[in-house]
Amino acid sequence: MTDNHRVLYARAVRGVPVPEDFATDVVEVPEPANGEFLVRNLYLALEPYYRNVMKGMAIYGTPLKPGDVMFGETLGRVLASRHPDFKSGDLVVARGSWQEYAILSGAHVRKIEAAASLGTAAPLSTELGVLGTPGLTGYAGIVYVAPPRPGQTVVVSAATGPVGSTAGQTARLMGARVVGIAGSAAKCSYAVNELGFAECVNYKDGDLKASLKAACPDGIDVYFDNVGGDTLVAALANLALNAQVVLCGMIGAYNQDVSPPGPHLGPVVIARATLKGLVVYDHVNRLPELKRVVGAWMRDGKFSYREDITLGLAGAPAAFCRLMRGENFGKALVKIAEDS
Amino acid sequence: MTDNHRVLYARAVRGVPVPEDFATDVVEVPEPANGEFLVRNLYLALEPYYRNVMKGMAIYGTPLKPGDVMFGETLGRVLASRHPDFKSGDLVVARGSWQEYAILSGAHVRKIEAAASLGTAAPLSTELGVLGTPGLTGYAGIVYVAPPRPGQTVVVSAATGPVGSTAGQTARLMGARVVGIAGSAAKCSYAVNELGFAECVNYKDGDLKASLKAACPDGIDVYFDNVGGDTLVAALANLALNAQVVLCGMIGAYNQDVSPPGPHLGPVVIARATLKGLVVYDHVNRLPELKRVVGAWMRDGKFSYREDITLGLAGAPAAFCRLMRGENFGKALVKIAEDS
Repeated sequence: MTDNHRVLYARAVRGVPVPEDFATDVVEVPEPANGEFLVRNLYLALEPYYRNVMKGMAIYGTPLKPGDVMFGETLGRVLASRHPDFKSGDLVVARGSWQEYAILSGAHVRKIEAAASLGTAAPLSTELGVLGTPGLTGYAGIVYVAPPRPGQTVVVSAATGPVGSTAGQTARLMGARVVGIAGSAAKCSYAVNELGFAECVNYKDGDLKASLKAACPDGIDVYFDNVGGDTLVAALANLALNAQVVLCGMIGAYNQDVSPPGPHLGPVVIARATLKGLVVYDHVNRLPELKRVVGAWMRDGKFSYREDITLGLAGAPAAFCRLMRGENFGKALVKIAEDS
Repeated sequence: MTDNHRVLYARAVRGVPVPEDFATDVVEVPEPANGEFLVRNLYLALEPYYRNVMKGMAIYGTPLKPGDVMFGETLGRVLASRHPDFKSGDLVVARGSWQEYAILSGAHVRKIEAAASLGTAAPLSTELGVLGTPGLTGYAGIVYVAPPRPGQTVVVSAATGPVGSTAGQTARLMGARVVGIAGSAAKCSYAVNELGFAECVNYKDGDLKASLKAACPDGIDVYFDNVGGDTLVAALANLALNAQVVLCGMIGAYNQDVSPPGPHLGPVVIARATLKGLVVYDHVNRLPELKRVVGAWMRDGKFSYREDITLGLAGAPAAFCRLMRGENFGKALVKIAEDS
């Protein structure tokens, strides 16, 4: 018998999550039934959108009930399989939940090649970050949804996370001038010195609208929005004519139980701007392109990323709460087990 | 000596305008200086955006001071000219202000051909409505900014005004199914019976979100927004995948001295929608196309319009206040004088 430690959704969350919103238990690792396979979870990705899952938003399927294993995306290795498409030893990205072992049926599962075969030096964990759906979000948003012209000014919020850092570096490598928005001096310093952004504005430093105006004297041509709220308002106030805005996430709103109003749209009309909603699932066919293009940039030393790894599943609730307070620095991951 | 009756901007407006925000005076009609010409104003167009001019919004130039002649667009005939490009007898659309006679320098003036030469039966007044910039706004928004495919569902707010009725009828004539939003049973009946819309929802009848869902069971593919506010929120809640939204005006916000917040943009992300700001001045080169295309539809009996004409300049303040309360029915105009 092997124990499966799990983190549970304990109660309906109010506002910013706290560790008491979660609980734990230990069950036996079950055997896969016919058509199922057993995975050992190696990494759990912490994603802001889980806060929406905890709200029971319809687009994420059956709402969680107290006592359910907490929803989450994982990277794991198949230990045993009674499914024709998966075999022992396969690496998978899946909705493996906050637990050490998962029984999966193949839905929402994506098999991945070992990173080594791609010729990148990137560790396996990047499959949940810059070489996974977060990186794809930033890459596809810039390359396919709102491509900047060389010399244009691109502003990216949540600039040091996996989405923002991929969006910003992709824009830089397409010839744009990139300005980041982040929440600490250390993050801003990293954005300029490691990610190669022209400037980075700390939104906690006061008047963001004025800071963006100073950093973008000719206005913002492309704004990649990860956060919504006051940051979006400040960006809209600085749009250049014919600006493009990618609406990708609204972290501030995720923490609220009733959706807050959005920005006044008068500045969008005046700038003749285009706002586009981006959902990464429309672009999953481009994951091989992401790995090829960004993988090559990594090999050539042109593309950086940062991970914020918590060791051990027990630390997941506190790490998720830190993420939802904006206190992570880089892709938030929980390392559940060593690969073996 | 001829008297020039004028309507003045009397005081800073708060909220929805009232007639007391205006005053009147009588001055002598001046002589044009060198480079100027004198126009007799025949029609004054009443436009919601004047409320923004009264707020001193920077995009409309020098703010009005109490005692200034009220800003407005007019159709008039040149009586005397010392300007090389204009001669006595010319018809002009201009910023002729709320007065009987205007001295103009040629800036923001557009000479128009007599309607008869276009082969339309449309009266001169349509130069300020469906064959002028309001019509162009609706036409260009549908044809150039957010063209529907045949069979798609197009929703238009302020559906019986010159912008909305042109947008909706243009969409219908491009093969779309058009649903209007208007503020009375009479307007809705007109939209269906005269404008040929499939349905029209009275937003005063209660739950607009539910009414739009019933009228648009497959979702809204194109939403042409003239009003913003709760109407925009209700439309965003019913977007079809990959919907297009034209942001054209926010009449509700015009009446407020501090811009209200806008809609929560989560539904835009979920629908992968595109929102585009439209400013008609980008499309003025298309006025001849508007007159040719819509003029032909009129001749063929495929295109209707309605005017809400107040007789005499003295009625302009009350008519403008009615417009800003949404009580007009058709293009709001003031007839100042008979053409002679």
